[in-house]
Amino acid sequence: MGKVYLIGAGPGAADLITVRGARLLGTADVVLHDALVEPAMLDYAPHARKIAVGKRCGQRSTAQHFINKQIVDAALAHDVVVRLKGGDPMLFGRADEEMRALEEAGIDYEVVPGITAMLAVAARIGAPLGHDFCAISLSDNLKPWSLIENRLRLVAEAGLVIALYNPVSKARPWQLGKAFDILREVLPADIPVVFGRAAGRPDERMTIARLADAEASSADMATCVIIGSAETRVIVRETKPDLVYTPRFVKEGAR
Amino acid sequence: MGKVYLIGAGPGAADLITVRGARLLGTADVVLHDALVEPAMLDYAPHARKIAVGKRCGQRSTAQHFINKQIVDAALAHDVVVRLKGGDPMLFGRADEEMRALEEAGIDYEVVPGITAMLAVAARIGAPLGHDFCAISLSDNLKPWSLIENRLRLVAEAGLVIALYNPVSKARPWQLGKAFDILREVLPADIPVVFGRAAGRPDERMTIARLADAEASSADMATCVIIGSAETRVIVRETKPDLVYTPRFVKEGAR
Repeated sequence: MGKVYLIGAGPGAADLITVRGARLLGTADVVLHDALVEPAMLDYAPHARKIAVGKRCGQRSTAQHFINKQIVDAALAHDVVVRLKGGDPMLFGRADEEMRALEEAGIDYEVVPGITAMLAVAARIGAPLGHDFCAISLSDNLKPWSLIENRLRLVAEAGLVIALYNPVSKARPWQLGKAFDILREVLPADIPVVFGRAAGRPDERMTIARLADAEASSADMATCVIIGSAETRVIVRETKPDLVYTPRFVKEGAR
Repeated sequence: MGKVYLIGAGPGAADLITVRGARLLGTADVVLHDALVEPAMLDYAPHARKIAVGKRCGQRSTAQHFINKQIVDAALAHDVVVRLKGGDPMLFGRADEEMRALEEAGIDYEVVPGITAMLAVAARIGAPLGHDFCAISLSDNLKPWSLIENRLRLVAEAGLVIALYNPVSKARPWQLGKAFDILREVLPADIPVVFGRAAGRPDERMTIARLADAEASSADMATCVIIGSAETRVIVRETKPDLVYTPRFVKEGAR
Protein backbone atom coordinates (compact mmCIF):
# COMPACT_ATOMS: atom_id res chain seq x y z
CA MET A 1 0.00 0.00 0.00
CA GLY A 2 1.35 3.39 -1.03
CA LYS A 3 1.42 6.81 0.50
CA VAL A 4 -0.66 9.73 -0.72
CA TYR A 5 0.53 13.34 -0.76
CA LEU A 6 -2.15 16.00 -0.94
CA ILE A 7 -0.15 18.85 -2.45
CA GLY A 8 -1.10 22.46 -3.06
CA ALA A 9 -0.11 23.58 -6.56
CA GLY A 10 -0.49 27.26 -5.71
CA PRO A 11 -2.12 29.84 -7.97
CA GLY A 12 -0.95 28.36 -11.27
CA ALA A 13 2.58 29.49 -12.11
CA ALA A 14 4.77 26.39 -12.00
CA ASP A 15 7.32 27.99 -9.68
CA LEU A 16 4.80 29.02 -7.02
CA ILE A 17 4.54 25.46 -5.70
CA THR A 18 6.69 24.76 -2.62
CA VAL A 19 10.13 23.18 -2.93
CA ARG A 20 8.77 20.17 -1.02
CA GLY A 21 5.77 19.84 -3.34
CA ALA A 22 8.01 19.92 -6.43
CA ARG A 23 10.41 17.36 -4.93
CA LEU A 24 7.60 14.95 -3.99
CA LEU A 25 6.14 15.23 -7.50
CA GLY A 26 9.49 13.94 -8.72
CA THR A 27 8.99 10.75 -6.70
CA ALA A 28 5.39 10.17 -7.79
CA ASP A 29 4.14 7.07 -9.59
CA VAL A 30 0.72 8.62 -10.17
CA VAL A 31 -0.42 12.25 -10.14
CA LEU A 32 -4.14 13.02 -9.94
CA HIS A 33 -4.46 16.69 -10.80
CA ASP A 34 -7.08 19.40 -11.22
CA ALA A 35 -7.82 20.86 -14.63
CA LEU A 36 -6.64 24.29 -13.47
CA VAL A 37 -2.99 23.37 -12.99
CA GLU A 38 -0.51 24.75 -15.57
CA PRO A 39 0.90 21.98 -17.78
CA ALA A 40 4.48 22.95 -16.86
CA MET A 41 3.72 21.99 -13.26
CA LEU A 42 3.55 18.35 -14.33
CA ASP A 43 7.15 18.48 -15.61
CA TYR A 44 8.15 18.06 -11.96
CA ALA A 45 6.76 14.52 -12.22
CA PRO A 46 8.51 13.06 -15.28
CA HIS A 47 7.95 9.41 -14.34
CA ALA A 48 4.37 9.61 -13.15
CA ARG A 49 1.16 8.61 -14.85
CA LYS A 50 -0.93 11.81 -14.94
CA ILE A 51 -4.68 11.67 -14.49
CA ALA A 52 -6.83 14.79 -14.75
CA VAL A 53 -9.76 14.57 -12.36
CA GLY A 54 -12.82 16.59 -11.43
CA LYS A 55 -14.78 19.22 -13.25
CA ARG A 56 -13.84 20.13 -16.81
CA CYS A 57 -11.67 17.04 -17.28
CA GLY A 58 -14.16 15.10 -19.39
CA GLN A 59 -14.49 12.39 -16.79
CA ARG A 60 -17.39 9.99 -16.89
CA SER A 61 -18.24 10.96 -13.34
CA THR A 62 -17.13 14.10 -11.56
CA ALA A 63 -18.74 13.17 -8.25
CA GLN A 64 -16.35 13.52 -5.36
CA HIS A 65 -16.83 9.92 -4.22
CA PHE A 66 -15.49 8.86 -7.62
CA ILE A 67 -12.36 10.99 -7.21
CA ASN A 68 -11.93 9.69 -3.67
CA LYS A 69 -12.10 6.13 -5.02
CA GLN A 70 -9.51 6.92 -7.69
CA ILE A 71 -7.11 8.21 -5.03
CA VAL A 72 -7.64 5.18 -2.80
CA ASP A 73 -7.33 2.74 -5.73
CA ALA A 74 -4.10 4.41 -6.87
CA ALA A 75 -2.66 4.13 -3.35
CA LEU A 76 -3.52 0.45 -3.25
CA ALA A 77 -1.64 -0.18 -6.52
CA HIS A 78 1.33 2.23 -6.29
CA ASP A 79 3.99 3.45 -3.87
CA VAL A 80 3.73 7.22 -4.21
CA VAL A 81 0.50 8.95 -5.21
CA VAL A 82 0.20 12.71 -5.47
CA ARG A 83 -3.14 14.47 -5.43
CA LEU A 84 -2.25 17.90 -6.81
CA LYS A 85 -4.84 20.57 -6.09
CA GLY A 86 -4.89 24.22 -7.17
CA GLY A 87 -4.10 26.72 -4.41
CA ASP A 88 -3.90 25.15 -0.96
CA PRO A 89 -5.19 21.58 -0.79
CA MET A 90 -7.14 22.00 2.47
CA LEU A 91 -8.84 25.36 1.85
CA PHE A 92 -12.42 25.22 0.62
CA GLY A 93 -13.43 22.60 -1.91
CA ARG A 94 -13.48 18.92 -1.17
CA ALA A 95 -10.27 18.50 0.78
CA ASP A 96 -11.93 17.21 3.93
CA GLU A 97 -13.74 14.51 1.95
CA GLU A 98 -10.55 13.26 0.32
CA MET A 99 -8.87 13.23 3.73
CA ARG A 100 -11.71 11.28 5.29
CA ALA A 101 -11.76 8.76 2.43
CA LEU A 102 -8.05 8.10 3.03
CA GLU A 103 -8.64 7.84 6.79
CA GLU A 104 -11.42 5.31 6.27
CA ALA A 105 -9.28 3.25 3.90
CA GLY A 106 -6.41 3.26 6.41
CA ILE A 107 -4.03 4.84 3.87
CA ASP A 108 -1.07 6.91 5.05
CA TYR A 109 -1.05 10.47 3.72
CA GLU A 110 0.57 13.82 4.21
CA VAL A 111 -0.51 17.34 3.31
CA VAL A 112 1.83 19.88 1.68
CA PRO A 113 0.30 23.36 1.89
CA GLY A 114 0.14 25.73 -1.08
CA ILE A 115 -0.23 29.42 -1.92
CA THR A 116 -3.95 30.10 -1.88
CA ALA A 117 -5.51 32.57 -4.35
CA MET A 118 -5.88 35.54 -1.99
CA LEU A 119 -2.16 35.46 -1.14
CA ALA A 120 -1.25 35.33 -4.81
CA VAL A 121 -3.52 38.28 -5.59
CA ALA A 122 -2.22 40.25 -2.61
CA ALA A 123 1.37 39.71 -3.78
CA ARG A 124 0.53 41.30 -7.14
CA ILE A 125 -1.47 44.29 -5.94
CA GLY A 126 0.30 45.49 -2.77
CA ALA A 127 -0.67 44.42 0.73
CA PRO A 128 -4.48 44.38 0.93
CA LEU A 129 -4.36 41.59 3.55
CA GLY A 130 -1.96 43.51 5.77
CA HIS A 131 -4.45 43.44 8.61
CA ASP A 132 -7.40 41.37 9.93
CA PHE A 133 -9.23 39.66 7.08
CA CYS A 134 -11.58 36.83 6.19
CA ALA A 135 -12.15 34.41 3.32
CA ILE A 136 -15.71 33.58 2.33
CA SER A 137 -16.91 31.33 -0.47
CA LEU A 138 -19.88 32.65 -2.43
CA SER A 139 -20.82 29.15 -3.55
CA ASP A 140 -24.33 28.55 -2.28
CA ASN A 141 -24.92 25.02 -3.50
CA LEU A 142 -23.78 23.59 -0.17
CA LYS A 143 -24.87 26.31 2.22
CA PRO A 144 -27.98 28.51 2.26
CA TRP A 145 -27.63 31.94 0.63
CA SER A 146 -29.16 33.58 3.73
CA LEU A 147 -26.14 32.33 5.71
CA ILE A 148 -23.76 33.98 3.23
CA GLU A 149 -25.66 37.28 3.45
CA ASN A 150 -25.51 37.19 7.24
CA ARG A 151 -21.78 36.48 7.18
CA LEU A 152 -21.10 39.34 4.76
CA ARG A 153 -22.98 41.82 6.94
CA LEU A 154 -21.19 40.74 10.12
CA VAL A 155 -17.65 40.73 8.70
CA ALA A 156 -18.26 44.13 7.12
CA GLU A 157 -19.46 45.45 10.49
CA ALA A 158 -16.35 43.90 12.05
CA GLY A 159 -14.16 45.97 9.71
CA LEU A 160 -12.36 42.97 8.20
CA VAL A 161 -10.89 42.92 4.72
CA ILE A 162 -12.95 40.35 2.78
CA ALA A 163 -11.60 37.87 0.23
CA LEU A 164 -14.36 36.25 -1.81
CA TYR A 165 -13.68 32.81 -3.26
CA ASN A 166 -15.84 31.25 -6.01
CA PRO A 167 -17.41 34.64 -6.78
CA VAL A 168 -19.18 33.64 -10.01
CA SER A 169 -19.90 30.67 -12.26
CA LYS A 170 -22.53 29.66 -14.82
CA ALA A 171 -24.58 28.28 -11.96
CA ARG A 172 -23.88 31.33 -9.81
CA PRO A 173 -24.60 34.41 -11.97
CA TRP A 174 -26.18 36.90 -9.50
CA GLN A 175 -24.51 36.17 -6.15
CA LEU A 176 -21.53 38.53 -6.45
CA GLY A 177 -23.74 41.48 -7.46
CA LYS A 178 -25.97 40.79 -4.48
CA ALA A 179 -22.92 40.56 -2.22
CA PHE A 180 -21.76 44.02 -3.40
CA ASP A 181 -25.25 45.39 -2.70
CA ILE A 182 -25.12 44.08 0.87
CA LEU A 183 -21.61 45.41 1.48
CA ARG A 184 -22.59 48.83 0.10
CA GLU A 185 -25.25 49.05 2.83
CA VAL A 186 -22.56 48.71 5.51
CA LEU A 187 -19.28 50.00 4.10
CA PRO A 188 -18.12 53.42 2.80
CA ALA A 189 -18.55 53.98 -0.94
CA ASP A 190 -14.88 54.59 -1.66
CA ILE A 191 -13.49 51.36 -0.19
CA PRO A 192 -11.20 49.74 -2.77
CA VAL A 193 -12.26 46.46 -4.36
CA VAL A 194 -9.61 44.32 -6.09
CA PHE A 195 -10.57 41.94 -8.89
CA GLY A 196 -7.59 39.60 -8.95
CA ARG A 197 -7.79 37.30 -11.93
CA ALA A 198 -5.29 34.49 -12.61
CA ALA A 199 -2.65 36.09 -10.38
CA GLY A 200 0.87 35.48 -11.63
CA ARG A 201 -0.26 33.70 -14.80
CA PRO A 202 0.15 34.96 -18.36
CA ASP A 203 -3.55 35.86 -18.52
CA GLU A 204 -3.44 37.81 -15.25
CA ARG A 205 -5.70 40.83 -14.95
CA MET A 206 -5.79 42.99 -11.82
CA THR A 207 -8.30 45.80 -11.58
CA ILE A 208 -9.30 48.12 -8.75
CA ALA A 209 -12.71 49.76 -8.34
CA ARG A 210 -14.46 51.77 -5.64
CA LEU A 211 -17.05 49.67 -3.82
CA ALA A 212 -19.72 52.08 -5.09
CA ASP A 213 -18.74 51.30 -8.69
CA ALA A 214 -17.76 47.63 -8.38
CA GLU A 215 -19.52 45.46 -10.96
CA ALA A 216 -19.92 41.72 -10.73
CA SER A 217 -19.15 41.45 -14.45
CA SER A 218 -15.51 42.29 -13.65
CA ALA A 219 -15.10 38.81 -12.11
CA ASP A 220 -15.04 35.34 -13.61
CA MET A 221 -14.35 31.87 -12.23
CA ALA A 222 -10.59 32.52 -12.06
CA THR A 223 -11.03 35.68 -9.99
CA CYS A 224 -10.52 36.23 -6.28
CA VAL A 225 -12.28 39.42 -5.19
CA ILE A 226 -10.77 41.34 -2.26
CA ILE A 227 -12.87 44.07 -0.63
CA GLY A 228 -10.92 46.44 1.58
CA SER A 229 -11.81 47.74 5.03
CA ALA A 230 -12.28 51.39 5.93
CA GLU A 231 -8.51 51.46 6.64
CA THR A 232 -7.48 50.17 3.21
CA ARG A 233 -5.72 52.70 0.99
CA VAL A 234 -4.77 53.04 -2.70
CA ILE A 235 -1.35 54.21 -3.87
CA VAL A 236 -1.80 55.93 -7.21
CA ARG A 237 1.27 55.46 -9.43
CA GLU A 238 1.93 57.34 -12.63
CA THR A 239 3.70 54.80 -14.79
CA LYS A 240 2.65 51.57 -13.11
CA PRO A 241 -0.66 50.06 -11.97
CA ASP A 242 -2.06 51.36 -8.68
CA LEU A 243 -1.49 49.48 -5.43
CA VAL A 244 -3.78 48.63 -2.52
CA TYR A 245 -2.67 48.15 1.09
CA THR A 246 -4.17 47.81 4.55
CA PRO A 247 -1.90 49.29 7.23
CA ARG A 248 -1.19 47.56 10.53
CA PHE A 249 -2.27 50.65 12.45
CA VAL A 250 -5.94 51.10 13.29
CA LYS A 251 -6.77 54.43 14.85
CA GLU A 252 -8.69 54.85 18.11
CA GLY A 253 -12.41 55.11 17.51
CA ALA A 254 -12.39 52.84 14.47
CA ARG A 255 -14.76 49.94 14.61
CA MET B 1 20.05 50.65 -8.56
CA GLY B 2 19.04 47.11 -7.71
CA LYS B 3 15.79 45.24 -7.46
CA VAL B 4 14.25 44.09 -4.19
CA TYR B 5 12.36 40.84 -3.75
CA LEU B 6 10.03 40.62 -0.75
CA ILE B 7 9.89 36.86 -0.30
CA GLY B 8 7.80 34.73 2.03
CA ALA B 9 9.91 32.10 3.78
CA GLY B 10 6.87 30.10 4.86
CA PRO B 11 6.41 28.54 8.30
CA GLY B 12 10.06 27.67 8.89
CA ALA B 13 10.96 24.35 7.23
CA ALA B 14 13.46 25.15 4.48
CA ASP B 15 11.49 23.27 1.82
CA LEU B 16 8.21 25.08 2.43
CA ILE B 17 9.41 28.18 0.59
CA THR B 18 8.24 28.40 -3.04
CA VAL B 19 10.44 27.22 -5.90
CA ARG B 20 10.56 30.84 -7.12
CA GLY B 21 11.60 32.12 -3.70
CA ALA B 22 14.42 29.56 -3.45
CA ARG B 23 15.62 30.36 -6.98
CA LEU B 24 15.66 34.11 -6.37
CA LEU B 25 17.61 33.61 -3.12
CA GLY B 26 20.26 31.95 -5.29
CA THR B 27 20.66 35.18 -7.25
CA ALA B 28 20.80 37.47 -4.22
CA ASP B 29 23.71 39.77 -3.36
CA VAL B 30 22.18 40.63 0.03
CA VAL B 31 19.53 38.87 2.12
CA LEU B 32 17.85 40.75 4.97
CA HIS B 33 16.06 38.10 7.00
CA ASP B 34 13.91 37.72 10.10
CA ALA B 35 15.26 35.96 13.18
CA LEU B 36 12.58 33.28 12.82
CA VAL B 37 13.86 31.77 9.60
CA GLU B 38 15.56 28.34 9.83
CA PRO B 39 19.31 28.60 9.13
CA ALA B 40 19.04 25.98 6.34
CA MET B 41 16.83 28.41 4.43
CA LEU B 42 19.85 30.66 3.89
CA ASP B 43 21.71 27.86 2.09
CA TYR B 44 19.62 28.80 -0.95
CA ALA B 45 21.65 32.04 -1.02
CA PRO B 46 25.29 30.86 -1.00
CA HIS B 47 26.75 34.06 -2.46
CA ALA B 48 24.75 36.61 -0.49
CA ARG B 49 25.68 38.70 2.48
CA LYS B 50 23.15 37.78 5.18
CA ILE B 51 21.84 40.40 7.57
CA ALA B 52 19.46 39.49 10.39
CA VAL B 53 17.03 42.35 11.02
CA GLY B 54 14.23 43.20 13.39
CA LYS B 55 13.32 41.97 16.82
CA ARG B 56 15.60 39.50 18.59
CA CYS B 57 18.48 40.07 16.18
CA GLY B 58 20.54 42.19 18.56
CA GLN B 59 20.28 45.21 16.32
CA ARG B 60 21.04 48.64 17.64
CA SER B 61 17.63 49.78 16.47
CA THR B 62 14.66 47.57 15.71
CA ALA B 63 12.43 50.40 14.59
CA GLN B 64 10.79 49.71 11.27
CA HIS B 65 12.09 52.88 9.65
CA PHE B 66 15.60 51.56 10.33
CA ILE B 67 14.83 48.27 8.57
CA ASN B 68 13.23 50.17 5.70
CA LYS B 69 16.38 52.25 5.37
CA GLN B 70 18.55 49.11 5.36
CA ILE B 71 16.50 47.68 2.50
CA VAL B 72 16.64 50.89 0.49
CA ASP B 73 20.38 51.33 1.14
CA ALA B 74 21.07 47.75 0.06
CA ALA B 75 19.11 48.29 -3.15
CA LEU B 76 21.13 51.43 -3.91
CA ALA B 77 24.40 49.49 -3.54
CA HIS B 78 23.60 46.05 -4.99
CA ASP B 79 21.82 44.39 -7.91
CA VAL B 80 19.61 41.84 -6.17
CA VAL B 81 18.33 42.32 -2.64
CA VAL B 82 16.05 39.80 -0.93
CA ARG B 83 13.95 40.72 2.08
CA LEU B 84 13.04 37.29 3.48
CA LYS B 85 10.10 37.33 5.88
CA GLY B 86 8.57 34.45 7.83
CA GLY B 87 5.22 33.19 6.52
CA ASP B 88 3.78 35.38 3.77
CA PRO B 89 5.54 38.72 3.32
CA MET B 90 2.37 40.81 2.96
CA LEU B 91 0.22 39.35 5.75
CA PHE B 92 0.18 41.27 9.01
CA GLY B 93 3.39 42.83 10.31
CA ARG B 94 5.16 45.66 8.61
CA ALA B 95 4.92 44.63 4.99
CA ASP B 96 2.99 47.66 3.86
CA GLU B 97 5.61 49.98 5.37
CA GLU B 98 8.47 48.25 3.59
CA MET B 99 6.51 48.42 0.36
CA ARG B 100 5.80 52.11 0.78
CA ALA B 101 9.43 52.85 1.62
CA LEU B 102 10.47 51.20 -1.65
CA GLU B 103 7.77 53.10 -3.54
CA GLU B 104 8.95 56.41 -2.12
CA ALA B 105 12.56 55.62 -3.00
CA GLY B 106 11.54 54.69 -6.54
CA ILE B 107 13.07 51.22 -6.22
CA ASP B 108 11.76 48.35 -8.33
CA TYR B 109 10.46 45.42 -6.28
CA GLU B 110 8.46 42.23 -6.55
CA VAL B 111 6.58 40.16 -3.98
CA VAL B 112 6.82 36.36 -3.81
CA PRO B 113 4.04 34.98 -1.60
CA GLY B 114 4.66 32.40 1.11
CA ILE B 115 2.83 29.79 3.19
CA THR B 116 1.31 31.67 6.11
CA ALA B 117 1.10 30.07 9.58
CA MET B 118 -2.57 29.09 9.50
CA LEU B 119 -2.09 27.11 6.27
CA ALA B 120 0.91 25.31 7.75
CA VAL B 121 -1.04 24.45 10.91
CA ALA B 122 -4.06 23.31 8.89
CA ALA B 123 -1.87 21.00 6.80
CA ARG B 124 -0.66 19.24 9.96
CA ILE B 125 -3.99 18.88 11.76
CA GLY B 126 -6.52 18.04 9.02
CA ALA B 127 -8.65 20.65 7.28
CA PRO B 128 -9.86 23.14 9.90
CA LEU B 129 -9.96 25.93 7.27
CA GLY B 130 -12.10 23.87 4.91
CA HIS B 131 -14.81 26.50 4.99
CA ASP B 132 -15.29 30.25 5.60
CA PHE B 133 -12.67 31.58 8.01
CA CYS B 134 -10.91 34.71 9.22
CA ALA B 135 -7.47 35.71 10.48
CA ILE B 136 -7.25 38.18 13.35
CA SER B 137 -4.13 39.49 15.08
CA LEU B 138 -4.41 39.77 18.87
CA SER B 139 -1.64 42.36 18.97
CA ASP B 140 -3.17 45.44 20.52
CA ASN B 141 -0.23 47.80 20.43
CA LEU B 142 -1.42 49.24 17.11
CA LYS B 143 -5.19 48.93 17.47
CA PRO B 144 -7.47 49.39 20.46
CA TRP B 145 -8.37 46.22 22.40
CA SER B 146 -12.06 47.15 22.25
CA LEU B 147 -11.85 46.81 18.46
CA ILE B 148 -10.43 43.30 18.78
CA GLU B 149 -13.20 42.31 21.21
CA ASN B 150 -15.84 43.61 18.82
CA ARG B 151 -14.29 41.73 15.90
CA LEU B 152 -14.15 38.47 17.85
CA ARG B 153 -17.83 38.72 18.80
CA LEU B 154 -18.93 39.46 15.23
CA VAL B 155 -16.90 36.73 13.51
CA ALA B 156 -18.08 34.20 16.11
CA GLU B 157 -21.67 35.24 15.43
CA ALA B 158 -20.95 34.91 11.72
CA GLY B 159 -19.94 31.27 12.25
CA LEU B 160 -16.46 31.68 10.77
CA VAL B 161 -13.49 29.55 11.75
CA ILE B 162 -11.06 31.93 13.49
CA ALA B 163 -7.27 31.88 13.14
CA LEU B 164 -5.56 34.02 15.78
CA TYR B 165 -2.14 35.45 14.92
CA ASN B 166 0.21 36.90 17.57
CA PRO B 167 -1.82 35.29 20.38
CA VAL B 168 0.65 35.93 23.20
CA SER B 169 3.94 37.63 24.00
CA LYS B 170 5.67 39.07 27.06
CA ALA B 171 3.91 42.34 26.37
CA ARG B 172 0.63 40.56 25.66
CA PRO B 173 0.02 38.13 28.55
CA TRP B 174 -3.76 38.28 29.11
CA GLN B 175 -5.24 38.93 25.66
CA LEU B 176 -5.69 35.31 24.53
CA GLY B 177 -7.44 34.32 27.77
CA LYS B 178 -9.79 37.25 27.38
CA ALA B 179 -10.41 36.29 23.74
CA PHE B 180 -11.41 32.76 24.82
CA ASP B 181 -13.77 34.26 27.42
CA ILE B 182 -15.49 36.35 24.75
CA LEU B 183 -15.77 33.45 22.32
CA ARG B 184 -17.20 31.21 25.05
CA GLU B 185 -20.07 33.70 25.44
CA VAL B 186 -21.04 33.20 21.79
CA LEU B 187 -19.90 29.73 20.72
CA PRO B 188 -20.79 26.18 21.85
CA ALA B 189 -18.56 24.73 24.59
CA ASP B 190 -17.39 21.73 22.56
CA ILE B 191 -16.02 23.60 19.56
CA PRO B 192 -12.47 22.37 18.85
CA VAL B 193 -9.55 24.74 19.40
CA VAL B 194 -6.21 23.93 17.75
CA PHE B 195 -2.97 25.19 19.26
CA GLY B 196 -0.60 24.88 16.32
CA ARG B 197 2.95 25.56 17.41
CA ALA B 198 5.92 25.68 15.02
CA ALA B 199 4.06 23.71 12.34
CA GLY B 200 6.34 21.43 10.34
CA ARG B 201 9.42 22.28 12.38
CA PRO B 202 11.33 19.89 14.68
CA ASP B 203 9.82 21.54 17.75
CA GLU B 204 6.26 21.29 16.40
CA ARG B 205 3.50 20.75 18.94
CA MET B 206 -0.14 20.40 17.91
CA THR B 207 -2.80 20.13 20.59
CA ILE B 208 -6.59 20.17 20.46
CA ALA B 209 -8.88 21.32 23.26
CA ARG B 210 -12.61 21.99 23.64
CA LEU B 211 -13.32 25.72 23.69
CA ALA B 212 -14.70 25.29 27.23
CA ASP B 213 -11.31 23.92 28.38
CA ALA B 214 -8.95 25.96 26.18
CA GLU B 215 -6.22 27.66 28.22
CA ALA B 216 -4.14 30.56 27.03
CA SER B 217 -1.05 28.95 28.59
CA SER B 218 -1.14 26.36 25.77
CA ALA B 219 0.06 29.05 23.34
CA ASP B 220 3.35 30.87 22.95
CA MET B 221 4.74 33.33 20.42
CA ALA B 222 5.27 30.57 17.84
CA THR B 223 1.66 29.40 18.04
CA CYS B 224 -1.22 30.01 15.65
CA VAL B 225 -4.53 29.31 17.41
CA ILE B 226 -7.43 28.08 15.27
CA ILE B 227 -10.92 28.11 16.78
CA GLY B 228 -13.46 26.00 14.92
CA SER B 229 -17.01 26.91 13.95
CA ALA B 230 -20.11 25.00 15.06
CA GLU B 231 -19.61 22.83 11.95
CA THR B 232 -16.01 21.86 12.77
CA ARG B 233 -15.51 18.21 13.72
CA VAL B 234 -12.79 16.07 15.33
CA ILE B 235 -11.71 12.69 13.96
CA VAL B 236 -10.51 10.59 16.89
CA ARG B 237 -7.74 8.21 15.82
CA GLU B 238 -6.42 5.34 17.93
CA THR B 239 -2.75 5.22 17.02
CA LYS B 240 -2.24 8.72 15.63
CA PRO B 241 -3.05 12.25 16.82
CA ASP B 242 -6.63 13.38 16.32
CA LEU B 243 -7.64 15.48 13.31
CA VAL B 244 -9.85 18.54 12.95
CA TYR B 245 -11.84 19.45 9.84
CA THR B 246 -14.55 21.88 8.75
CA PRO B 247 -16.79 20.37 6.04
CA ARG B 248 -17.89 22.29 2.96
CA PHE B 249 -21.54 21.51 3.70
CA VAL B 250 -23.46 23.80 6.04
CA LYS B 251 -26.92 22.58 6.91
CA GLU B 252 -30.09 24.67 6.52
CA GLY B 253 -30.85 26.65 9.65
CA ALA B 254 -27.21 27.10 10.62
CA ARG B 255 -26.15 30.65 11.16
